[in-house]
This record gives sequence, C-alpha cells and structure tokens, in this order.
Amino acid sequence: MKRLRIAQIAPVATALPPTGSGSVELISWLLTEGLVRRGHDVTLFATGDSTTSARLSAAYPRGYWHDTSMWPWELYEMLNLAAAVERSSEFDIIHFQAAYYPLSLAFARLCPIPLVQTLHHSPSPEEVRLWSRYPEAPFVAISNEQARLLAGLNVVDIVLHGIDTDSFAFSDTPDDYLLFLGRFTDGKGVLQAIDIARRTGHRILLAAPEDEYYQAKVKPLVDGERVVYVGEVGHAEKVKLLGGARAMLYPVQAGEPFGLVLAEAMACGTPVAALDRGAVREVVEDSVTGIIFPDERAMCDGLPRVLSLNRRQVRDHGVARFGAMRMVDEYVAVYHRLVEAHRVHAREDRSSVSEVRA
Amino acid sequence: MKRLRIAQIAPVATALPPTGSGSVELISWLLTEGLVRRGHDVTLFATGDSTTSARLSAAYPRGYWHDTSMWPWELYEMLNLAAAVERSSEFDIIHFQAAYYPLSLAFARLCPIPLVQTLHHSPSPEEVRLWSRYPEAPFVAISNEQARLLAGLNVVDIVLHGIDTDSFAFSDTPDDYLLFLGRFTDGKGVLQAIDIARRTGHRILLAAPEDEYYQAKVKPLVDGERVVYVGEVGHAEKVKLLGGARAMLYPVQAGEPFGLVLAEAMACGTPVAALDRGAVREVVEDSVTGIIFPDERAMCDGLPRVLSLNRRQVRDHGVARFGAMRMVDEYVAVYHRLVEAHRVHAREDRSSVSEVRA
Repeated sequence: MKRLRIAQIAPVATALPPTGSGSVELISWLLTEGLVRRGHDVTLFATGDSTTSARLSAAYPRGYWHDTSMWPWELYEMLNLAAAVERSSEFDIIHFQAAYYPLSLAFARLCPIPLVQTLHHSPSPEEVRLWSRYPEAPFVAISNEQARLLAGLNVVDIVLHGIDTDSFAFSDTPDDYLLFLGRFTDGKGVLQAIDIARRTGHRILLAAPEDEYYQAKVKPLVDGERVVYVGEVGHAEKVKLLGGARAMLYPVQAGEPFGLVLAEAMACGTPVAALDRGAVREVVEDSVTGIIFPDERAMCDGLPRVLSLNRRQVRDHGVARFGAMRMVDEYVAVYHRLVEAHRVHAREDRSSVSEVRA
Repeated sequence: MKRLRIAQIAPVATALPPTGSGSVELISWLLTEGLVRRGHDVTLFATGDSTTSARLSAAYPRGYWHDTSMWPWELYEMLNLAAAVERSSEFDIIHFQAAYYPLSLAFARLCPIPLVQTLHHSPSPEEVRLWSRYPEAPFVAISNEQARLLAGLNVVDIVLHGIDTDSFAFSDTPDDYLLFLGRFTDGKGVLQAIDIARRTGHRILLAAPEDEYYQAKVKPLVDGERVVYVGEVGHAEKVKLLGGARAMLYPVQAGEPFGLVLAEAMACGTPVAALDRGAVREVVEDSVTGIIFPDERAMCDGLPRVLSLNRRQVRDHGVARFGAMRMVDEYVAVYHRLVEAHRVHAREDRSSVSEVRA
C-alpha cells in the first residue's frame, strides 16, 4: 500500500498522551503512534507539550484545559484545524478528532484534500440537523449505535476504538472488590453501581475526578470501608485498580457511543457487568468478556455469573477485539478509500473539462 | 467606481433589522441597505426572517438568540460564514460582522477573495495574542481607541459607526428628565447615572432590558418618581425617550470601543454628559454635542452647561458626523482598496510564475 501523508488533528485541551482521563486525546495519540509504526508520514497537530513519534505541529505551547485566558476554547480548536487545512498541499488526508465537529464541516468544502472526522459523542437531533447541510462530509462512527444517530450523513465506516493492550497487565488473582471507573454523572450510573454493590454484599471502589456531583450525591454514600473513593487515577493506578477488581460495574443509564473502560477492564482480565444501553452490545461479548443485563435488578441477580467468567478468556477476547493496531489498520483502510475516491473524482472533473473543450 | 459584488455576513442571532437592542445587527443592516442604495450587488447572509433590500442568503430560518437547541451558537455563525466562503467565486469581497472574530481569521487564508472583518468589541490581550497568528488578515476598527488595542494586526482603516439619522426626530422642547439608555452593567455606569441625577436634583429615566443586574442593584434604587424604570424599548419608544430627555447621562466606566447611543441622542438634539473613557472623545464633540468630564463629580458640577447646549446644533453636528451614508461610503472605499490590492497581488503572483518559466 502507498505511504500516506496524514495530518492528525488532536484536541488542544491538554498534552498528548493525556496523563489523566481524556479518551479522545488517548485515541488520537494511539492512532498517531500506530500510523507511524505502520510507516506512514504523520503530522500531529496538538499542543507543544505533547509527546509523539510523529512530526508535531503545535499552534500553542500548552492546552486550554486549565487556562481560562484561552477562551472560548472552540476558537483554539478551530485555528488548530485551520493550520492543517492551510497546509493541505503537504498532506493526502486530514483526520479531525476534536470537538466541535462542525468545525471540520465548515472547512471540508474549502479543503482540496479529503477531511474526515471521527465523532466521539452521541449527537443530538439538533446537531444532526445542522450537520446535514454537509451531506457529503465523511464521518467515521465509533459504533453502530452512533452511526444510527448519524442517519442521513456520510458515515464512511465504523471503527471501534482500540487500546494499548500491552499496557494493561493481566491479573488472574483479583482482590475482593467491585470497581466503578468513569465520570460521576447520572448517565454513567455511579449511584446505581453503589446500590448494586450494597445489595449484593460487595465492597466497591470508585475512581473518578472529584466534582460537584461527587460532593452532592456520591460523597454521602462513601464510608471508606464498603464504599471507597479513590479519586482520579493515572494509568498505572488504573491498571492496578482494574486488575484487582473481581468485576467492573457498568450500569450506564445514558446511551453511550462506546465505552473505553469496558475494553480496558477486559485487557486486565476483569469481566464487566453492564446494562444493555447504547453501544454496550458492540463492546461486550455477552457471557464471554462480561454479561449484559436488561436492568439493575437482573444485574444484582446475575452478578455471581459475571464473577465466575474465565479471566484469561476475558483478556484474550478483549485483546483480540480491541488491540490498537486493529483500529489503526481500519483507519488506514478508510484513508486509502477516501484518497482514492478523491483522486478518481478529481480525474473525472478534469476529463469532463476536456470534453467541454473538445 | 466599479460596482462591487459584496457578501455581507451579519450575525445570525436574530432577524435583521433588530426589533430591540442589537447594535451589531443594526450596523450590518444599515450598511447593507446603504450599499444597495449606492448600486452595489449585495448578498446578505442572515436569518431567513430578516428583511433586506439585498439578496438574502439564509442558512437558518430563524436566529439562535431564543433557541437553545441552536447551541453552541458559535457553530451557527461559523457555518453562516463558511456558506459565503464556499461561494466566493460569486463575490469580490466578503465582509464579516459577527462574533467570534477569529472565525474569519480561520477562513481568510482559504478564501480566494478578500475577507475583511469589523470588530465590535474591545479585544483582550489574550484575544489579540491569538489573532496575531494571522497578521495579514484585514480588520476595520470602529474607533482609534479600538485600533490601539489591535496593535500588531492589519487594521486597514477606522470607520466610525453610522445611524439612520432620518429615523431620529429632532426635538427642541424636551421634558424635564435625564436619560440612561444601555445595558445594566457596571461598565455602563447605571448606578453612577442614578447617583448623579439624585445629587443634581434631576429626575432620571432608565431604559434597558431587565436582567439579574437590574434585580440585584438597580431595582432597589427605582422609586417610580425620581428614578423611573421604563424597561427595554423599541425604536419608536427610544426616539421619544431620547427626544424628551434634557440630556443623556453616559458615565461609562469601562473603555468602550464606540457608543452608538451617543450618536442616537445627538440625532434627537439631546446633548450628552459623558465620562472621558474609551472612544468617547471620538464620538462626542466636546462643548458642541455634549460635554466630556474626567469624573462623576465634575459631571455633577458641569451638568448645567450640558443642559444649556444648543439642541439644534447638537442635532446638526450629530447628523453630519454619524449619517449612515458617510459610514457606507467609507466602507466602499475600504472594499475597493482591498479588492484592488488583491488584484495587484494576484497579478504579481502570475508574473512571478512567468518569470520562473521564462
């Protein structure tokens, strides 16, 4: 296959790779590393304090996440993308990962090379209505669940996320606790997770950034014994927490377009107990890497079955399905397809000009 | 002069012309009407419910101001601008009026015709630092005061705002009150205006939209007799209020880049008592259309002199300086200059290509 010149546009909120949470940053970084590993010529548009094997193009020394002078942040994302579009003669394709997504729509028609975007959230009907003004702009969806919401738009492929499975150590002998890992929101179901742990007589550890939701709704339930708050965790601590958990509880309430923590748990051999919402069925292999339940009550009743799943099998299936290079190769295929379609299209444009002249 | 094909990009927050406040919308609309009157071929990019003598290009039926489903609103402004840039072969120049201003910076280098923007606020140092990544992008400033803040950027001209002076009736016999007209903010100095009226023994009327600031800080001072709140006013009511005022108090605290209400007061023959901040000296002719004071105490002491200014002279000077067609003609000159510079630049590019070939 031809070596591609790829501009990868990461969010400019923080440095890449992210030290804490930040799934979009993590996916952008992993994809970039994998593309370089596959021999492509990659320029990463990210903050100046990022670390990458690609060529780094930094419009800003640092990200806007903790800098209120960089406001509104959307403008910084926009100018980061514009910097790549301005240099489009140097690339075969531009891949935009950051919010907000219409940024790339606005530039797509002005860009002489393909500009593709991966969507990282579940779009609202209002968003899709706005985006439908650009029916030709190519999207990559991260699940069928998300692609369904993008009906009417140009979804060129579905590429499930990948993770750096090597950095998640397999653990065959967990400690005696359940784990909730994610943000503290109603949508993520932390209160349901605590309730399920209590009702089934298990200890639960909660790992997430401390915020107002935590103060108001979670903290009153934390006793430091049966319900333990461990704060926001870095990668090493996360791997340890995941490996030590007998199961991860994922009583997600909102329909999520993916669920990266599910793949991360699997990579440690930790089975997941998940509610049947959003993309869960696309991430969890039912009765293999976890069990999918219709509601919280069924999750309570079926938790022993989750705990009895074979952890080695959980790990092997998780690694096979969510290895980063699988994701990288699928994106490379998307890039080749778009570049080729664009080349054919440009040739047709030229030949129709010749016809007119003839 | 050559007839220009002009794309005028208004904000898409509300319909044009605005029914209530909205100085950016008003200026965009007046400029568009004047350009049509001067015989130019103008396309106005605005909401579908706008009224204009130009060709209307509407990406959205209505504005986002009262529609939370159109969020974040910046995206709607961006796609409205992008719609014009996509059609740049139909225009000689694109003039962008809406916030946020870096929107047009991001598109300027991708746009094959000149893209100029008028700035409508006082930029912060952080904003100017961001914008300085595009040192070639042309700005029109609305005052010397604002141009000063844009140091290092490409300020191609300063064009003071104009108003539809015909729609402001001259009033030679005012009632016995002072007027505060604007938004209720610390920067606009409404509390100082009330205090000055009290200390000088005058009745004061306050016209502005009701908001939290009003509830918290202004309402306790309103007694319905000496301090009267009249709410947000439409145009007809505004003209009546202005004409009936013996003077407008403008104890502005923040440095504003213009002060449209000052020009509107003048057009009714109403002199202004203004603090020497921001662009006040560029809008008020001291001792002719109003008096400029260093502080509130001086304003109290000097108020009788303001009230004794000749109202006919205030009107005549105001109309001469702030007529809409003066603004229109200055913008046309800017457009011609940018279009010509662009043409010369393109020709030079072509001849340098020929030189290389020769």
